[in-house]
Amino acid sequence: MIKVSILGTGNVATHLFRAFSNSAEIEIVQVIGRNKEALQAFGKEEKTTTDFSRLKFSDIYIVALSDSSINFVSQEITINNSLIVHTSGNTPMSALSTHQRRGVFYPLQTFSKSNELDFKNVPVCLEANDEADLALLKKLAHLVSENVYEISTEQRKSLHLAAVFTNNFTNYIYHVGSEICKENNVPFEILSPLIQETAEKIKSLSPFDAQTGPARRGDHNTISNHLEQLNNPEYKAVYELLSKSIEKTYGKEL
Amino acid sequence: MIKVSILGTGNVATHLFRAFSNSAEIEIVQVIGRNKEALQAFGKEEKTTTDFSRLKFSDIYIVALSDSSINFVSQEITINNSLIVHTSGNTPMSALSTHQRRGVFYPLQTFSKSNELDFKNVPVCLEANDEADLALLKKLAHLVSENVYEISTEQRKSLHLAAVFTNNFTNYIYHVGSEICKENNVPFEILSPLIQETAEKIKSLSPFDAQTGPARRGDHNTISNHLEQLNNPEYKAVYELLSKSIEKTYGKEL
Repeated sequence: MIKVSILGTGNVATHLFRAFSNSAEIEIVQVIGRNKEALQAFGKEEKTTTDFSRLKFSDIYIVALSDSSINFVSQEITINNSLIVHTSGNTPMSALSTHQRRGVFYPLQTFSKSNELDFKNVPVCLEANDEADLALLKKLAHLVSENVYEISTEQRKSLHLAAVFTNNFTNYIYHVGSEICKENNVPFEILSPLIQETAEKIKSLSPFDAQTGPARRGDHNTISNHLEQLNNPEYKAVYELLSKSIEKTYGKEL
Repeated sequence: MIKVSILGTGNVATHLFRAFSNSAEIEIVQVIGRNKEALQAFGKEEKTTTDFSRLKFSDIYIVALSDSSINFVSQEITINNSLIVHTSGNTPMSALSTHQRRGVFYPLQTFSKSNELDFKNVPVCLEANDEADLALLKKLAHLVSENVYEISTEQRKSLHLAAVFTNNFTNYIYHVGSEICKENNVPFEILSPLIQETAEKIKSLSPFDAQTGPARRGDHNTISNHLEQLNNPEYKAVYELLSKSIEKTYGKEL
């Protein structure tokens, strides 16, 4: 049995709490947060607290807070000899350097509280200051996920950057698509199967090999037509830049 | 029973052939193409031909060819009184104007021959010159797909443009993500669940509401760090433009 406490009540804390609760091998000792109301979603009152000085003993404390709070809040953990980890993609493990036993438990997924997802499929990226702690984190991660990776701080930084592209920027591109549909009275749902298939395809094909479309073909006629169709200067700029980048990637100049 | 002939042997022709073959209500009369070898994938020899003058009678002829060939090849169809349709998102119905009965049967999906997909989920966008022909196209479309839409030439043009964003540009963004992973020795597969979930999310949430990330939060600290991390000037330009566009969308200036 691994004893775990979670610091935080946000999206990551919520999904970790749910995943840990489903394992008979994990005991959630406490959930600690500033907001009493938010804590109510985490079960019985005696298992939650707003008072950082009332921490009970756990094997692992998981600091599931915003990047800017990790360093400060982790210093409030005064229990010695336990392992302290954060869950951030973009924060070095050294943010926890007041603790000798430190590490990272980074679940690489986009979480929202309302969204049920199967934690088994969530990749968990681990880092620790020593081998025994890494083994402990691996044990914990394997109890909730089938995708466990050992990832250095540098690698995690690059993963976080790649995730901004594939999650945040992709979502913005979806937004542009939905706005074009709205302007022309076409339901955006028509594009949903295409969007799902585009995401599905890269499981069996590299994005480099999966690329299609006018820029890939060097079809300047279609590109000009599309640029004429676009009224919004923002969307025009995005269309132009991405088309140029695609043409460069495949060795043609616009 | 609807009698259909397909002109073309490419990706769209292949997937239409497979879908039509699975319906007991559709008879594929002929597949017509220039390339004898490519035609072999379409069954018995007597059902295929390279000779456009040997067309047999069908209720509908589907011109599943590249945009630039549609007008020219459709003029080779000399059988009168049948319905001629093309399958292009980006070509007006008027490209078939030598035929009195004309229309569009546009399956909005990214097709590759090797990729099995369930045609039932493919949205089919229909247009026709008259009501009876539209009804005939609807009957055909409903035999193979559960997503059938009546879409004008103007609407189809905007759908095609939106599809370039959500399919081609999204795939390029995936490519950038995979290159960042490669440079840092991280397997790109780690990002796959995030990519799938990002695509899945828009089924229940608008992309506008689903947007997260540093640009959405106005987190200029993280944005600067990411720009520093990026060595490739192309990727830097994409990161900058998309971040600025996201900030503008949510009312903040970079």
